[in-house]
Amino acid sequence: MANKVAFYAQSGGVTAVINATACGVIETARANNIKVLAGRNGIIGALTEDLIDTSQESNADIAALRHTPSGAFGSCRYKLKSLEENREQYERLIEVFSAHNIDYFFYNGGGDSQDTAHKVSQLSEKLGHPITCIGIPKTVDNDLPITDNCPGFGSVAKYVAVSIREAGFDVASMCATSTKVFIMEVMGRHAGWIAAAGGLAAEKQGDCPHIILFPEIAFNQAAFLKRVDECVKQYGYCAIVVSEGVQNTEGKFLSDAGLTDAFGHTQLGGVAPVIAQLIKSELGYKYHWAVADYLQRAARHIASKTDVDQAYALGKAAVEFALAGKNAVMPAIVRESNNPYRWSIGEAPLADVANIEREMPRDFISDNGFEITAKCREYLLPLIQGEAYPPYKDGLPNYVTLKNMAVAKKLEKEFII
Amino acid sequence: MANKVAFYAQSGGVTAVINATACGVIETARANNIKVLAGRNGIIGALTEDLIDTSQESNADIAALRHTPSGAFGSCRYKLKSLEENREQYERLIEVFSAHNIDYFFYNGGGDSQDTAHKVSQLSEKLGHPITCIGIPKTVDNDLPITDNCPGFGSVAKYVAVSIREAGFDVASMCATSTKVFIMEVMGRHAGWIAAAGGLAAEKQGDCPHIILFPEIAFNQAAFLKRVDECVKQYGYCAIVVSEGVQNTEGKFLSDAGLTDAFGHTQLGGVAPVIAQLIKSELGYKYHWAVADYLQRAARHIASKTDVDQAYALGKAAVEFALAGKNAVMPAIVRESNNPYRWSIGEAPLADVANIEREMPRDFISDNGFEITAKCREYLLPLIQGEAYPPYKDGLPNYVTLKNMAVAKKLEKEFII
Repeated sequence: MANKVAFYAQSGGVTAVINATACGVIETARANNIKVLAGRNGIIGALTEDLIDTSQESNADIAALRHTPSGAFGSCRYKLKSLEENREQYERLIEVFSAHNIDYFFYNGGGDSQDTAHKVSQLSEKLGHPITCIGIPKTVDNDLPITDNCPGFGSVAKYVAVSIREAGFDVASMCATSTKVFIMEVMGRHAGWIAAAGGLAAEKQGDCPHIILFPEIAFNQAAFLKRVDECVKQYGYCAIVVSEGVQNTEGKFLSDAGLTDAFGHTQLGGVAPVIAQLIKSELGYKYHWAVADYLQRAARHIASKTDVDQAYALGKAAVEFALAGKNAVMPAIVRESNNPYRWSIGEAPLADVANIEREMPRDFISDNGFEITAKCREYLLPLIQGEAYPPYKDGLPNYVTLKNMAVAKKLEKEFII
Repeated sequence: MANKVAFYAQSGGVTAVINATACGVIETARANNIKVLAGRNGIIGALTEDLIDTSQESNADIAALRHTPSGAFGSCRYKLKSLEENREQYERLIEVFSAHNIDYFFYNGGGDSQDTAHKVSQLSEKLGHPITCIGIPKTVDNDLPITDNCPGFGSVAKYVAVSIREAGFDVASMCATSTKVFIMEVMGRHAGWIAAAGGLAAEKQGDCPHIILFPEIAFNQAAFLKRVDECVKQYGYCAIVVSEGVQNTEGKFLSDAGLTDAFGHTQLGGVAPVIAQLIKSELGYKYHWAVADYLQRAARHIASKTDVDQAYALGKAAVEFALAGKNAVMPAIVRESNNPYRWSIGEAPLADVANIEREMPRDFISDNGFEITAKCREYLLPLIQGEAYPPYKDGLPNYVTLKNMAVAKKLEKEFII
């Protein structure tokens, strides 16, 4: 088989396992004599012809991607406009791909990225330079359709469930004389998947967390405070997982609820302190709060083995799909069975994935709006199974930083982002 | 040897490994026919005669304490007043100890607890009911004198170093188009030991974290902002570890710097958002911030094996000291060598430990006030060595909750706290 060239790019917020997907792509490509060029800082690297020659990296360093969080080649938040609005961007992509004899375009990201891959596929055919476009799912938000789940999510889910369990044990042992309420803020601006994962820590009545605040459920202050008070009275303490995306009944984020600093500036971000303040002023309980922020999505040290395996398998499948002549598709996780959890790799047309957000079903949330249901647990639990510890050196995870050597530019024209 | 009875209590803020110490105490006591009664919620359990009969727990459950964070018998923040101020409390303790034929008093905590153990030792002799009092060190603050370090600290140190490394990788891969500054707030109201541990993640020039803000160094806004800007320009991003105890030049906590909510209430806690706001308004950089709070001290999933081993060894030594007829002492970690790190158990008189805080030496902090020195690294690095993963069940750490059955009361008089 003639040598082929692939372009791979990471897109959007990075995760604990997106590099495991990169590892799957590059190892499978190497096994099939495919050269992989990566976009420096994602698709921006393609637009600016800033390509990384991954063949300069050792097999050991590529293998180490499997246990290294973040995006090894750089990622970006950069959504291509619609074809109508900015056809020039798409044409530039194809120009760069042509100049570097790129046969395959692997785009590793969320819904926007799948949309871009889809458009490049359509346009490249029209322009007479057909490029095989394969999307690869990735997002901690878990909001891509068709695939059982999205790589990155399972590891955040595990981090959140482990963390709230540990914090719950802590507060339970101190609550007689100290902190009565603990609040942990997690990601999920639009959907409660990550917050729901906290519920996995509660295996029986009374277990922590006692309350989950979802973006899907408008914040009911009276019902919430009543429940907090009940928990403190019944269990001695109350542990709460709150999604950053919780909104009030007017659809406004609670985190924007009007905190101002001494200079009158609005204080940005952080719903946990807002909730804490509310509890303090209305119920008078001593509280503590934590905001996990990037720690949760970068926490490769406590990644889900299932997630790592799936992330790798999807990268591998992407290359195999390309070799099999498939185009404009995304490998997806198919759930074969729940208990034991069995999964396989299926295939989703990009046209069916692009720009469609999967919402969390209402029946995954209890009637009172503060807990997950058995159905939700059945879905989530398999995704956090197994540990996949990174190697340690001097007491710290030994993550790899690649050389990331640039490919010589071939085009004269510069492209300004 | 006749059967002896010991009283064991956990004191103050709990840690990832204080139960490993409890495990060391109880396993060693069982091997020597000593019955251990534990105070429910720490010393309050002794004052109120609310004792837990640990002999009701299985060997397996006691063994599981070694991998379970938090305080299995409950802890409390309750400092006994001075003998002069409240002799009644001390007499009550001795009354309860006498009623339950307690020979040994093991008190597992920080400086205040060592002081209490010391006073009980003195008073019990005077009152003609001599009780052997052994203090056992514990505090994430790492501020006890004589001992090389304090159990609990090494695991927080590991958590902080691992977390900032992971977050740094995350930000580094996104900074071209997104977040430029990341701020992680850690514990340490009075000393920068925990913040310093973040510095372990930076092994070479340019590594994350780029800036550490210590309570020991008055916050210099101009120098700080200049350094943030330099880092963003040189490395593309700036990762910051900030101690909750950072103060301005007037000795006021930055976290109390005047944030108010919409109702004019002072917003409590959180120096990270204050720093973030400052960077946003003065430099305009996009930021993210995290507050680890209890997650850091409860994170048994990423505990330091060195810390777990030392916590257990100190519990074991406490019982051995009592059996050897020692009194009013605390087992302490003695550093025998740095590289390889070797340690042994030594002995510190409680009189020399009580109420003395060990400060972080100024030469552990770089001249610019933003980094740790080689000397600091040499001290800290051994403390985070080794991983001691808990067992997992269904994807989550399998922590034990004890039965905690109460011992029948023998005294008629109730004691009101």
